[in-house]
Amino acid sequence: MCPSSIRTFLDQNDLDGFLYVGDSYSDADMYYLSRFLAGDRFALLASGKTTILISSMEEGRARKESCANICLSTSAYHIIEKLKAGSRPEEAYIQVLIEFLQEQGIRRLGVPYRFPAGIYSRLVQHFKIEILESPAARDRQIKSRGELEAIALSQRACERAMHRAVSLIAGSIPRGETLCRGDEPLTSEIVRRAIEESLLEDGCEAVDTIVAGGPQAADPHARGTGPIPANSPIVIDIFPRSKSSRYFADMTRTVLKGEASPEAVELYEAVRTAQDAGLMAVKEGVSGAHVHKIVSDVFLELGYPEKAGCGFTHSTGHGVGLEVHERPSLGEAGEILHGGHVVTVEPGLYYPDVGGVRLEDLVVVKKSGSDNLTNFERRLVL
Amino acid sequence: MCPSSIRTFLDQNDLDGFLYVGDSYSDADMYYLSRFLAGDRFALLASGKTTILISSMEEGRARKESCANICLSTSAYHIIEKLKAGSRPEEAYIQVLIEFLQEQGIRRLGVPYRFPAGIYSRLVQHFKIEILESPAARDRQIKSRGELEAIALSQRACERAMHRAVSLIAGSIPRGETLCRGDEPLTSEIVRRAIEESLLEDGCEAVDTIVAGGPQAADPHARGTGPIPANSPIVIDIFPRSKSSRYFADMTRTVLKGEASPEAVELYEAVRTAQDAGLMAVKEGVSGAHVHKIVSDVFLELGYPEKAGCGFTHSTGHGVGLEVHERPSLGEAGEILHGGHVVTVEPGLYYPDVGGVRLEDLVVVKKSGSDNLTNFERRLVL
Repeated sequence: MCPSSIRTFLDQNDLDGFLYVGDSYSDADMYYLSRFLAGDRFALLASGKTTILISSMEEGRARKESCANICLSTSAYHIIEKLKAGSRPEEAYIQVLIEFLQEQGIRRLGVPYRFPAGIYSRLVQHFKIEILESPAARDRQIKSRGELEAIALSQRACERAMHRAVSLIAGSIPRGETLCRGDEPLTSEIVRRAIEESLLEDGCEAVDTIVAGGPQAADPHARGTGPIPANSPIVIDIFPRSKSSRYFADMTRTVLKGEASPEAVELYEAVRTAQDAGLMAVKEGVSGAHVHKIVSDVFLELGYPEKAGCGFTHSTGHGVGLEVHERPSLGEAGEILHGGHVVTVEPGLYYPDVGGVRLEDLVVVKKSGSDNLTNFERRLVL
Repeated sequence: MCPSSIRTFLDQNDLDGFLYVGDSYSDADMYYLSRFLAGDRFALLASGKTTILISSMEEGRARKESCANICLSTSAYHIIEKLKAGSRPEEAYIQVLIEFLQEQGIRRLGVPYRFPAGIYSRLVQHFKIEILESPAARDRQIKSRGELEAIALSQRACERAMHRAVSLIAGSIPRGETLCRGDEPLTSEIVRRAIEESLLEDGCEAVDTIVAGGPQAADPHARGTGPIPANSPIVIDIFPRSKSSRYFADMTRTVLKGEASPEAVELYEAVRTAQDAGLMAVKEGVSGAHVHKIVSDVFLELGYPEKAGCGFTHSTGHGVGLEVHERPSLGEAGEILHGGHVVTVEPGLYYPDVGGVRLEDLVVVKKSGSDNLTNFERRLVL
């Protein structure tokens, strides 16, 4: 399978093929084009067809599992003989690549920005190479029906995990400044473990999960650690990936157990208002930058300007798919939204003294608005 | 912290600094040098000191969590202003990098083979750049005491998970050609889930786990799926990563429930003999290629030559650390082993008719031999 859009891309750029080299655990484009998951490096050439060049060890699995038209082995290009003849492994591999590309009749080659410089600098001696934005990265922004279903499934798992976390906190007892279960403090670690167990039951993995209360919640990227404070907002941000489909979901809720200060309640209401405005603004044809400006303006109007690292310190959202952060951006430089984009809308406010509040939903961009994939209530005080 | 070995490396190569750009989830060198885990791209410059250049969003966390000497934000180089002025994101980022490097007084720069070609091709217009093997990749082959302890902890988690898997299989009942629990077939998925739950309890994650019986076991990279056959070898290969330390372990055992055929028993004994020979051969000063040859020769002598994709079709082992597959290799091109290397010794034999057998231990290379980190019995029939 080589999408016709890539064929068009090659024609427009006067290229014979587009080459990726990497592993498909870390290179989402390679997984997108091959649907083949491999932890070790392989090469993928998108031309009229999709061709995988891989170690003989993995060739059989690639033939079975990938959607590539052709799977070739580096052994067919005598990599072992090259190594035995004394070539250094990297040099032997590059020689194999050169022979492979020549055999495929490639003269003008495209490679993505992230293509390895060590290979690029050698191939450029043999081929005319253009470094371009990966056509697969562009294509996979727009989700197919199957991809939307995969993301929705990850989102359901995300919600079940969130439910488990919120239940744990709801069932805890504020004792002094800390939430407790029986005599033990309830910690970020305990809640995170419950989230991870729920995700595992649903066939998902969480690379990272944020459960951060008190001052920790005021740092939007802190994971959270130790006893969870009572009477203070707790940010829970879960972004699971399905182990089978590889698609992510992403959701954040902020909850509080105990007595909420008026400041915390006001913060929460401001974030909810800003999120509603952002969700209303998302539709085909508007830019991510525009949505971000609307959200930022709500905060300004409500008396929460960004300054000195406090307030609304991050962008409004990002695309979600095979990567948890992918394009389009809903930030300063956010591009035009198209139908089939899947993006988060996640305003937040952060102040070291009050703490942090963030609310994040996941939506599909539509012609006249968006479909919200998120089904989880927004409520601060449990 | 910038290891003195990197300072020496820079001097030897007449470089002012070595630059990495990537995310430290997928770039082990960047994690090794910074001890900072970030899913989004950042830059790391190793010169006399270690400097991180990262988004303002992540700067605070980098200061807190990383071991870098200096953490700078892309905002300090006006990335937002560049974007607002209409620069494309990639171009704005490269401009920030150029200003950062110039401010650091860099003129002669080293980058690793995997450095992004899109950035390399622009930086090379401003700096003298050498593409070299990453000094961090070389340094991190030799494990410190702390790293060895981290790997040993992952290995203990690996063994507990293996114990759970083997117990499940031992407790199953052969019914016809399939293993059953009660009325239900025991599947690869059920065993894999038990392994993953055990690893989660130990704070580890398994990117992938192999539980493959019957013909599936004959493909050394098949994960395994569906009901597990009785009377046939089942390959269980677990390679967990600690979520806290990021270090991997790696172990394989092959077990069988029911009646073992003489061929399967012979296969198992051959692999055990080959593994013993490999384990005996590992020590400082010998090459990985030599260890591989010894193992291959044992198989030859025992009447198991490699041919037509059957027999001993892979290399004897590989380094393990922040990556599950890293250097040194115990294969055709395997380099000299040094004290502090951590490597697997994992011979296997694969035949579609009999199935597959693999045994894998994890050892630390020592002056006069090796320390086996693995503590798990080798027994085929349960």
